[in-house]
Amino acid sequence: MVRVTSERVISGRVPTGRTKQPVTVLGLGSMGTALAAAFRRAGHPTTTWTRSHRRGPAGTADAATAAAAVAASPLVAVCVLDYQAVDAVLAGELTGKAVVNLTTGTPEQARVLAARVVERGGEYLDGGILVTPPAIGSPTATVLYSGSPDAFQANDRVLTALGAARYLGADPGLAALYDAALLGIAYSTVTGFLQAAALVGREEVSAARFLPYAREVLATTSASLTAVARRVDSGEHTGLDARLDVRLSAVEHLVHAGQVRGIDTTILEHVRALLAQAVADGHGAADYSAVIELLREP
Amino acid sequence: MVRVTSERVISGRVPTGRTKQPVTVLGLGSMGTALAAAFRRAGHPTTTWTRSHRRGPAGTADAATAAAAVAASPLVAVCVLDYQAVDAVLAGELTGKAVVNLTTGTPEQARVLAARVVERGGEYLDGGILVTPPAIGSPTATVLYSGSPDAFQANDRVLTALGAARYLGADPGLAALYDAALLGIAYSTVTGFLQAAALVGREEVSAARFLPYAREVLATTSASLTAVARRVDSGEHTGLDARLDVRLSAVEHLVHAGQVRGIDTTILEHVRALLAQAVADGHGAADYSAVIELLREP
Repeated sequence: MVRVTSERVISGRVPTGRTKQPVTVLGLGSMGTALAAAFRRAGHPTTTWTRSHRRGPAGTADAATAAAAVAASPLVAVCVLDYQAVDAVLAGELTGKAVVNLTTGTPEQARVLAARVVERGGEYLDGGILVTPPAIGSPTATVLYSGSPDAFQANDRVLTALGAARYLGADPGLAALYDAALLGIAYSTVTGFLQAAALVGREEVSAARFLPYAREVLATTSASLTAVARRVDSGEHTGLDARLDVRLSAVEHLVHAGQVRGIDTTILEHVRALLAQAVADGHGAADYSAVIELLREP
Repeated sequence: MVRVTSERVISGRVPTGRTKQPVTVLGLGSMGTALAAAFRRAGHPTTTWTRSHRRGPAGTADAATAAAAVAASPLVAVCVLDYQAVDAVLAGELTGKAVVNLTTGTPEQARVLAARVVERGGEYLDGGILVTPPAIGSPTATVLYSGSPDAFQANDRVLTALGAARYLGADPGLAALYDAALLGIAYSTVTGFLQAAALVGREEVSAARFLPYAREVLATTSASLTAVARRVDSGEHTGLDARLDVRLSAVEHLVHAGQVRGIDTTILEHVRALLAQAVADGHGAADYSAVIELLREP
């Protein structure tokens, strides 16, 4: 029953049934511990188990065995060291269980595991967590999911305890694929920032002083990716932007500026090599997006 | 005279004297042409000269020689191939001139050139342009300046014709230093995005579909740099973030996901090598910012 007042819509159904859904968390490393704490904070009776018998976060019930922990809840989140460890903790019967595997791995591993879970009667969701443990359950956290659409629909509200829940599709490998791609961007960017901080640091410019400029450039760069993505998808690497041969000469200066200061220039040398190869291949007038061809076929 | 009404403040002084300051642009490559067009659009009588005698943008006056072009305006912007070419076009007397050199180069080159310009009676500003030619004069354009504070103060309003004008300090090398550092970040990020697009592209995910996730991760990464910069400046690479040894195992998956798909993983292998070295050096419990020590002393 839904009762509408002039102020707001009030659901007549007491939502306890959904928001208090029991959850099991297998694995209590720093990420597993953060997951269990977030489920618990959101009001879900949370059962934990870990191989080392470390105690779970306050308010969670520690199960004696992995099988007992799995039996305790319809939703079983797994975050252990690797996929071999996932296989070990999910050895038994899984009928009626939704398994959400948040262990880091490759798309291939996720697909193999999904098939095994389905064989044992369960439904499989793979999750890619885009933040570090302290951010779990905060407004900045996003978790990507792929696999069983039914399992996602049935559990999306529970999963928002961890962060924004984004469903990518039925292929269980998608979350790990996106996760790998996105982590690669994050590492490229932070490493680029550290390399820049090392460069300006040689001239007594602090990272804090340099930071606002770096963030402004990242915002501009992020905005420019719309055009880059369009070129990648169309294969037409022409535009009004700077030519590869002009960029090559600018990047020579970047490499030189780093080298004379004795700092690491590995990423810049890689960029220079990509530019030089693309120019040698006859793409001197193309936009930078053209180097994706060299990344696809190194 | 300033007249105040209830609606707004109206300046009684006709601002022609400042906004119509003559400007000279030496060099008409794609960037020089964009600079001249932007000055012209802002209403500045613009004199251009280029070695190849190509005509300047509509509304600019082409000088017969570099010396004649320099003589035409108190503000002389230079954007040529390299610093050797700057030296050649600024060979004569520069008394009373403010030279704004926007040619790409290293901090060392900027410092040497600044000394020469001052010897010849001029004032020197070095500029680092953070955008490609099509963006010059648009709201997204930023140009960094360093060198003579007097020359910057006297010309900052004219220079805003090109984009937001940011003054970094009296050391003429600072603009090139920041420019190199910021371009390095931009290249690291865009190359990271292209490598990610190549990865998801192997599974038929288009760059356009992947783009919103990439931009979200860049926003989160940009926000995280505040803590990274603090750690870099303090040398205390501890925090609540992920440990290096945990990151190493995650990055192994990224490298593997790229390698099995046959795409370039150079940046990721570099990150893996940095992590492995930092762990081997005993920093397994540190945050990622700790790898700056390896970038400083490769």
